[in-house]
Amino acid sequence: MSKKVLILGVDGYIGWALANELTNKDYEVFGVDAFFRRSTVKSLYPISSKDYRRDQLYILSDDIRYSNILIELLQESPDAIIHLDEQPSAPFSMTHNGAMTTQSNNVLGTLRLLFLIKEHCPSTHLIKIGTMGEYGTPNCIIPEGMIPSHCIDEELRYCPMQGLMFPRSPGSFYHLSKVFDSLNIKFACDTWGLRSTDIMQGIVFGLAHETRFDYDENFGTVINRFCAQALAGVPLTIYGAGGQTRGFLPLTDSLRCLQIAIDNPPLEGTYRTFNQFAHIMTIMDCARLVIRAAADLGIDVKVRGIPNPRKESEDHTYHVVTDALHDLGYEPNLDFYSVIRETLLTLMPYKHLINKDIIYPTINWR
Amino acid sequence: MSKKVLILGVDGYIGWALANELTNKDYEVFGVDAFFRRSTVKSLYPISSKDYRRDQLYILSDDIRYSNILIELLQESPDAIIHLDEQPSAPFSMTHNGAMTTQSNNVLGTLRLLFLIKEHCPSTHLIKIGTMGEYGTPNCIIPEGMIPSHCIDEELRYCPMQGLMFPRSPGSFYHLSKVFDSLNIKFACDTWGLRSTDIMQGIVFGLAHETRFDYDENFGTVINRFCAQALAGVPLTIYGAGGQTRGFLPLTDSLRCLQIAIDNPPLEGTYRTFNQFAHIMTIMDCARLVIRAAADLGIDVKVRGIPNPRKESEDHTYHVVTDALHDLGYEPNLDFYSVIRETLLTLMPYKHLINKDIIYPTINWR
Repeated sequence: MSKKVLILGVDGYIGWALANELTNKDYEVFGVDAFFRRSTVKSLYPISSKDYRRDQLYILSDDIRYSNILIELLQESPDAIIHLDEQPSAPFSMTHNGAMTTQSNNVLGTLRLLFLIKEHCPSTHLIKIGTMGEYGTPNCIIPEGMIPSHCIDEELRYCPMQGLMFPRSPGSFYHLSKVFDSLNIKFACDTWGLRSTDIMQGIVFGLAHETRFDYDENFGTVINRFCAQALAGVPLTIYGAGGQTRGFLPLTDSLRCLQIAIDNPPLEGTYRTFNQFAHIMTIMDCARLVIRAAADLGIDVKVRGIPNPRKESEDHTYHVVTDALHDLGYEPNLDFYSVIRETLLTLMPYKHLINKDIIYPTINWR
Repeated sequence: MSKKVLILGVDGYIGWALANELTNKDYEVFGVDAFFRRSTVKSLYPISSKDYRRDQLYILSDDIRYSNILIELLQESPDAIIHLDEQPSAPFSMTHNGAMTTQSNNVLGTLRLLFLIKEHCPSTHLIKIGTMGEYGTPNCIIPEGMIPSHCIDEELRYCPMQGLMFPRSPGSFYHLSKVFDSLNIKFACDTWGLRSTDIMQGIVFGLAHETRFDYDENFGTVINRFCAQALAGVPLTIYGAGGQTRGFLPLTDSLRCLQIAIDNPPLEGTYRTFNQFAHIMTIMDCARLVIRAAADLGIDVKVRGIPNPRKESEDHTYHVVTDALHDLGYEPNLDFYSVIRETLLTLMPYKHLINKDIIYPTINWR
């Protein structure tokens, strides 16, 4: 029997691609979306209408913070819920109003969802999309969620803090909201016996399944923004020295990992963490890949260093454990060059639609 | 020149006592309160009216989550803000509606306060009342806020996680909200250069300055509840085995510690933590003290073990670092027996007012 999967935020960048990926593989998919993003920013890649998507899949318009429709869907006891329905912009969260909106939407939305799962479908597997940004960039190896039994960096010594959640150092009010979600979810698993996979995802890039593509300061992620800048003929905006190091993965890898999570639920009462990305790079590495892929397509791209609007280290270590997904069979696609080249090719016909006014950062962290 | 102190939640148990304590010592005190508690539960000790309190001190009625009055007060650049204006009940926070209310009120209220301080009085010292319950009961020494430079329990080994926030294991959605506050406040200090003392306070008991006294499941703390049960002639309700171990302090000690925090502000840009309590005891130890003090006043008290409505360990280690306040001169009052005896004596004339219907727990954590 096919698995029932409920996707919250199904109209989004990952949501829509995942819905199609799973439908093609005979999962029974249904989704909810408030269609906020669609009404706020125009996708560079032209996406299908709300009505078309509603016809294609079983999608309902609603805001999960108040939705009664959500309750009806949970009463059908889905095997898994993929929770992508959060305000995802770090820059937006650094304004007064943006911070209030972000923490209200994300923390209260997820908290309500936890109570509704407890009340209506306590065996359902909650797959929550968090971010590697929850960890920040501490000066030690980043384990997978919890502090391991032996001291980080020194394998043979017992760590007295073992089993506690590895301390987070989030870098924006958005990233903080994700940490709060993680703490609420872990508590619900421990206290009520729910089960959840909390995914610390790296930075996603590329396209799949005709999903949306954002490149503005708020909703565009770094490699996708660089692709849009390359196509628009403007220099790539490197913040500060560009030495910031992060984990990255192509959108298609994200879909693969989420399917692995769905197919391998944890036991009831278990809260587990996946550190989910394919490969670690610096921001400068990303820029170089985009420049090379663009050159291959006959586009000459420059780089422009700009003062870093964020408060973050531009030169730091970054060692991360990623065993959980690899143990379950995830084989990363490390050919980022081809993914970027393909993305540029797919977007080439729409490059005249790029709005250069929204490409540069305007929000200052300080 | 006397220090200007703004107390948020000035009509509460600690707030009112602190306002009087500081006024008597020539601080310039002003306060805000939405008067929620007063309208929800009746204090056993008869408290003065809103109007009387407004005449006594400069107190304004408002909800800090939306208040414009708060902005006007911040524009006067108080030396310190004591933030006591949060929903403080763990049991209440374990209901669906209570959890939403608690995390909304506490997290969004404090988040707004941080933005307002940044905008109007960035040098003001924010003193935030958190709780020792943020730490939970981990199986290691609890440091003061951050992970120390050497491994906990093993003094001589360098800890690779040093400087990160010591991981919290909160035991209710209320305690979680306090952890979220701590993370938001630390981030605001690191990013904007604000200064804050985040107080992990133990369980407060006793009376001072004619402040309110609560004994119901939601707002009464354990020793105060035991005192009310003793006076009402009902058995003391011990949850489970009563081995739960916590830090405790008399209300007068709490006032002393808060004054120390006001008088010794940290440098701008500094987030610091005080673990604030006088003495560690088990719940059973508390019951024994109340029984002994009551017997001294001719009251015979029984104990009744009831199934623990909370999900918590009833037998665990509890070692806590409390250096910061001691280094600043705090000398704990360890004579809990006398404080409890005094509390019973003060409340004796009102014992006929105790409502036995609200003494027993009704909310189950599971």
